[in-house]
Amino acid sequence: MITSNSNSRIKYIIKLQQKARFRQEEGLFVCEGVRFVMEVPVNLLFEVYVTPERASDTRLSAWLDNITAAGIPINEVQESVMNHMAMTMHPQGILALARIPRASLEDLTDEPHSLIICLEHVSDPGNAGTIFRTAEAAGAGGVIVDRLSCDCFSPKVVRSTMGSIFRMPCVITDDMPQMINKLSSKGFNTLAAVADADTVSYDAVSYLDNTAIVIGNEGDGLSSGAIAACSRSIFIPMHGATESLNASMAAGIILFEAARQRRHADMV
Amino acid sequence: MITSNSNSRIKYIIKLQQKARFRQEEGLFVCEGVRFVMEVPVNLLFEVYVTPERASDTRLSAWLDNITAAGIPINEVQESVMNHMAMTMHPQGILALARIPRASLEDLTDEPHSLIICLEHVSDPGNAGTIFRTAEAAGAGGVIVDRLSCDCFSPKVVRSTMGSIFRMPCVITDDMPQMINKLSSKGFNTLAAVADADTVSYDAVSYLDNTAIVIGNEGDGLSSGAIAACSRSIFIPMHGATESLNASMAAGIILFEAARQRRHADMV
Repeated sequence: MITSNSNSRIKYIIKLQQKARFRQEEGLFVCEGVRFVMEVPVNLLFEVYVTPERASDTRLSAWLDNITAAGIPINEVQESVMNHMAMTMHPQGILALARIPRASLEDLTDEPHSLIICLEHVSDPGNAGTIFRTAEAAGAGGVIVDRLSCDCFSPKVVRSTMGSIFRMPCVITDDMPQMINKLSSKGFNTLAAVADADTVSYDAVSYLDNTAIVIGNEGDGLSSGAIAACSRSIFIPMHGATESLNASMAAGIILFEAARQRRHADMV
Repeated sequence: MITSNSNSRIKYIIKLQQKARFRQEEGLFVCEGVRFVMEVPVNLLFEVYVTPERASDTRLSAWLDNITAAGIPINEVQESVMNHMAMTMHPQGILALARIPRASLEDLTDEPHSLIICLEHVSDPGNAGTIFRTAEAAGAGGVIVDRLSCDCFSPKVVRSTMGSIFRMPCVITDDMPQMINKLSSKGFNTLAAVADADTVSYDAVSYLDNTAIVIGNEGDGLSSGAIAACSRSIFIPMHGATESLNASMAAGIILFEAARQRRHADMV
């Protein structure tokens, strides 16, 4: 049993919690809590850390037997050590290292009637995570994120996805305008979500063909480069004195309009 | 200038920050930060607290002149005292007490083609605040909240509304099923948002007449009493393995479907 905060594995996990670059180098990220850890697909599960109290939990015993049989290492840690390395207030005595799922652009684009959501400079982890979760629910095939957005495998994003991080392919790009051009050349309609009421209402465009919806930064919106690269700009008509919607809310409203149109066209 | 954390006004403000019941008794709540304080309508502004550093800010000088002319007290406080009484990490040296806006049910229901959102046991302040903001943007006329939901004038809800708290009439009810019956008797379609796919899809009902959309608790959904009181239950069809949407996301998707239908019917 690991009983010391200065144990090298514990230091390694804390570094994975804190450093996006280290997560990418190692290809690993951290999952906390009973429900979330049990949701990690076995092929992505790298290692489990559990307190003796939690290991004796009857809810977990069948699951622990299964992953033991699958050859995944299980390490016992003292509760104080668990609390030290966990980022959540109530880590529930269990934490896992999961492999970062790798996706290629083709995984997203080669689906028929592909629907993709692209995030440029989306900086709030709660927004990014909620967009993963909502995009999955709307039937999107994947997420493309630029490097100036928050890291999608940070503890807070991962938690906010409610498990979608394991099911939604995610591609990271250095240059969103260039990525939009690439999607256009693959025949995608590329739609820039903007706050400009001189553009087209989001419900006046068709989402039936291959479509990429591009969402920008919470405060500044999309870059002019990204807007110029898109085939169209769309906006959500708003009442009252509200200046904008939350970025994840705007993404969700557009994604579910796409889902609505596709359902009405019997595409699903 | 107030220089001590034990000043009685400072203790009073901290109690307003912390106690929902005290806010209701006093009819006051706390607003923090330059942008938010400047958004308080003058008729709701009760008192302003500002640090000397912030008071000399050129952005604020015209506004401070205006509210002085309107007879609203401005109190200078030392920065350390401001940080002590503020709930945000960066209070920006300004805080105001605002009057809780009072609305009657008739303020919400007597509008033609009224659209109302009702919250039963919605416990997350971020969700409640985001629903205010999104409901205003969708053209809703007000919010009805039960007493088991979080307090709408708590610092976190108020911040999340992004100013909508001042513009969206809010009615508090002790009994949501009874309130739903009252809305029905006033001719409202009352729609229970549920996760049950055996109900009607949210986009297969009409929102053109007077409509109340009822949203439940994040984990448990609506009470059986609220569902039974509603004229219809609706659900949002979902793909993938996602079990649910975030409560504010579900509210936003339904509200913007209502807005879409009303726009297409040339009702706005």
